[in-house]
Amino acid sequence: MKLIVEKDYEAMSQVAANILLGLMSESRRVNLAITAGNTPKRLYEIMVPQVKGRPYFENVHYYNFDEIPIVGSQGYGITMRNLNDLYFGPANIKKEQLHPLDETNWQTQDARLKEAGGLDLILMGIGADGHFCGNMPGWTKFGSETYAVDISDADEARESLAAEVDGNLSKVPNEFYTMGPKSVMAAKHLVMFANGKKKAAIVKKAFFGEVTEDIPSSILQLHPNLTLILDQEAASELTNQN
Amino acid sequence: MKLIVEKDYEAMSQVAANILLGLMSESRRVNLAITAGNTPKRLYEIMVPQVKGRPYFENVHYYNFDEIPIVGSQGYGITMRNLNDLYFGPANIKKEQLHPLDETNWQTQDARLKEAGGLDLILMGIGADGHFCGNMPGWTKFGSETYAVDISDADEARESLAAEVDGNLSKVPNEFYTMGPKSVMAAKHLVMFANGKKKAAIVKKAFFGEVTEDIPSSILQLHPNLTLILDQEAASELTNQN
Amino acid sequence: MKLIVEKDYEAMSQVAANILLGLMSESRRVNLAITAGNTPKRLYEIMVPQVKGRPYFENVHYYNFDEIPIVGSQGYGITMRNLNDLYFGPANIKKEQLHPLDETNWQTQDARLKEAGGLDLILMGIGADGHFCGNMPGWTKFGSETYAVDISDADEARESLAAEVDGNLSKVPNEFYTMGPKSVMAAKHLVMFANGKKKAAIVKKAFFGEVTEDIPSSILQLHPNLTLILDQEAASELTNQN
Amino acid sequence: MKLIVEKDYEAMSQVAANILLGLMSESRRVNLAITAGNTPKRLYEIMVPQVKGRPYFENVHYYNFDEIPIVGSQGYGITMRNLNDLYFGPANIKKEQLHPLDETNWQTQDARLKEAGGLDLILMGIGADGHFCGNMPGWTKFGSETYAVDISDADEARESLAAEVDGNLSKVPNEFYTMGPKSVMAAKHLVMFANGKKKAAIVKKAFFGEVTEDIPSSILQLHPNLTLILDQEAASELTNQN
Repeated sequence: MKLIVEKDYEAMSQVAANILLGLMSESRRVNLAITAGNTPKRLYEIMVPQVKGRPYFENVHYYNFDEIPIVGSQGYGITMRNLNDLYFGPANIKKEQLHPLDETNWQTQDARLKEAGGLDLILMGIGADGHFCGNMPGWTKFGSETYAVDISDADEARESLAAEVDGNLSKVPNEFYTMGPKSVMAAKHLVMFANGKKKAAIVKKAFFGEVTEDIPSSILQLHPNLTLILDQEAASELTNQN
Repeated sequence: MKLIVEKDYEAMSQVAANILLGLMSESRRVNLAITAGNTPKRLYEIMVPQVKGRPYFENVHYYNFDEIPIVGSQGYGITMRNLNDLYFGPANIKKEQLHPLDETNWQTQDARLKEAGGLDLILMGIGADGHFCGNMPGWTKFGSETYAVDISDADEARESLAAEVDGNLSKVPNEFYTMGPKSVMAAKHLVMFANGKKKAAIVKKAFFGEVTEDIPSSILQLHPNLTLILDQEAASELTNQN
Repeated sequence: MKLIVEKDYEAMSQVAANILLGLMSESRRVNLAITAGNTPKRLYEIMVPQVKGRPYFENVHYYNFDEIPIVGSQGYGITMRNLNDLYFGPANIKKEQLHPLDETNWQTQDARLKEAGGLDLILMGIGADGHFCGNMPGWTKFGSETYAVDISDADEARESLAAEVDGNLSKVPNEFYTMGPKSVMAAKHLVMFANGKKKAAIVKKAFFGEVTEDIPSSILQLHPNLTLILDQEAASELTNQN
Repeated sequence: MKLIVEKDYEAMSQVAANILLGLMSESRRVNLAITAGNTPKRLYEIMVPQVKGRPYFENVHYYNFDEIPIVGSQGYGITMRNLNDLYFGPANIKKEQLHPLDETNWQTQDARLKEAGGLDLILMGIGADGHFCGNMPGWTKFGSETYAVDISDADEARESLAAEVDGNLSKVPNEFYTMGPKSVMAAKHLVMFANGKKKAAIVKKAFFGEVTEDIPSSILQLHPNLTLILDQEAASELTNQN
């Protein structure tokens, strides 16, 4: 594991941008899976003006690693809609470079990735409960490849997801889709980033504690090429360990 | 995971030799950790005449991934003694190419490997109980790097080890040393091989079942570059799964 | 450059087989361009029984790096016909794994290779005149990608090619096709092999002398990953230089 | 070759910074050879605040690819002095990370680089005469590794170098040192950048014309992993070719 601690969210986002833009500049096909959510907002703001209108980045192919379909809607699910708003749209990424994972094709996600040469890099955030992608404590098995998660009875999860669809619980599906630990571990480089005090405890547990399915992201410690990027707050509980 | 099934022990050994000799032929430094024991006997017989006296293989550096010191003895422990008998001696490997792990240096094994550029490949066998290297069910934690295993009270283990030192229990040490799962997962390529009916059940469990510390080698499923080489007998319980 | 000198043709062929079989054992797609002619005969004899009927080698894709069409014939040209006789046929390689270069598609050879991820390895022999692939002294430009060579007036070349088609000069085409130096240099690993006294002088000039278009294969010295495999006779003029 | 055209010097410098910072973020040892001179000034300004005081970049080792000693001076030659002023000094790079090439060690430069795992990336500029590093038209041989260039009679070169040492011709040495084409081609990634109208003609000739020792940088076309970064002015003669 390479540990990078930067002073704040801005600096952390810049370091993540450097890693992505550096890789994207290679001349061969580059396959990236990137994260939606709050953590990457500044990252995408930094990247958009450096990516938009650049034909030399057409070798980059984008994947999402999880998706929550919106009931009654035709288009993207919650993840791709968010990625589109933050990055694909503003950066004018061409349709041919996007490879959405969704309810129609999750069963072939791992085979399609393998056929395309595998993921070169996955950029992920960590949840305060230790989840990564859609791998939550309680239902995560380290041996899983891309799978469907039944949330028809998971009331807490449903309510949290409803916030993404105007608070409308009827738009929350009965299942969502995520790459599992085995699928994620197959990538050549994993980048995890986290900022803020609220992540300090889980960062310590997940990356400097025991490897256990109760803290799903603890498995990422075992990847041969993991980069962990933190701001000082997220790193604040590591002081005596490094 | 790449699964290779060959018809018998001879063919399995030849495939493993091809992979090792191919990698060793690269022009840069190559770091290998290789296994002692019974499974690799034929492999080393195939390799010795192709390696002995070849200056163009001096770029290859050899590591052992575990060691059981012999009480009262000055030289190699059980693992290095065995590797020396099977391969290093007959192939005339130079001292400068050997990097023994032992009781004096196990605490720096991971740091030394990192400094040397990391292991390019680890060749391992699997125990009928699912162990790999010295990672046995009962004491294996997935998050461990190279560690010492206290066997002062492990009577069964002590008796089994005594067989390696003329049945003399007083030569069996109180602790031995092994690279842990985290250290092994850090290598660029893992090769596991197994032959014979007696391995068929564990092969199925470890590589096609749940990832759990009760079956230590099950973690290897999650490595991005794992090759599993079996003879037909070791693969015999996989028939309906592939 | 990695220089490998073996005692004879048999040992040289075995080393080349180890390198090819080792690479082919990787789990990802592997793209190989391999040579026809006399030098690889023993190599393919060694490989056939280890490749035939092995589903785990279906990740390997084969390319030819030059082709001489046979006038009035429908099928393969001279190169692919020879490769088919020596290797693809006896090893039962599937059609889907073969990517023939011919008169209909040479203009897209470089683009198709790039799209497929590039060549992982090219195995080549050297001519007594220093040519490699179809890059002969007299017409070779280091900057060329795949190109057509006009031999309508090259009487010597036509007669030499006629020997491949029952001595029938009317079957020799007016042009043939070859990957140029730039296309060859784009591969990740180059392996050149040579045996016999008659190659000793050109081996010394091409790999230990000046880089010049008059000795086309001299450019290969500049590849970052070149392996040169010789028997003792082909290496006999190098004695004082290494 | 990957061609990147950006609108101006600022954008070109940012792209080069992304590529360097991305590579430097890897967890393994990274070996860089970087260029002195005018072209990289803005690049180093962008990099310094992102590198200074970052322990996570201590895996990066820096090399210079040429050196002109200053007669009568004890310290760095012209190249290292310039790199120190622009980057090593302001970024507080530790001595242990610097590996100066100079008059005392140029004969072992290639061996030392090989021992260290080879260069991961070389960043270079191009001269209006097509030179790269110290490989000038007139004395460049494609087959050269690191070599000494005798400039005792090269009046024009001596005068141009005098400008770097307060116009004092007596400080200009009789020979300087440079990695040759063969040494440069051995690196894993080559990055060449150029800006301004005055480079437009040579960029076209060197990268889209014939490969010839008269235009030394034309050899770089043959590297399997070359990135060419231009501003619009330097790319202005390429318009009809891409």
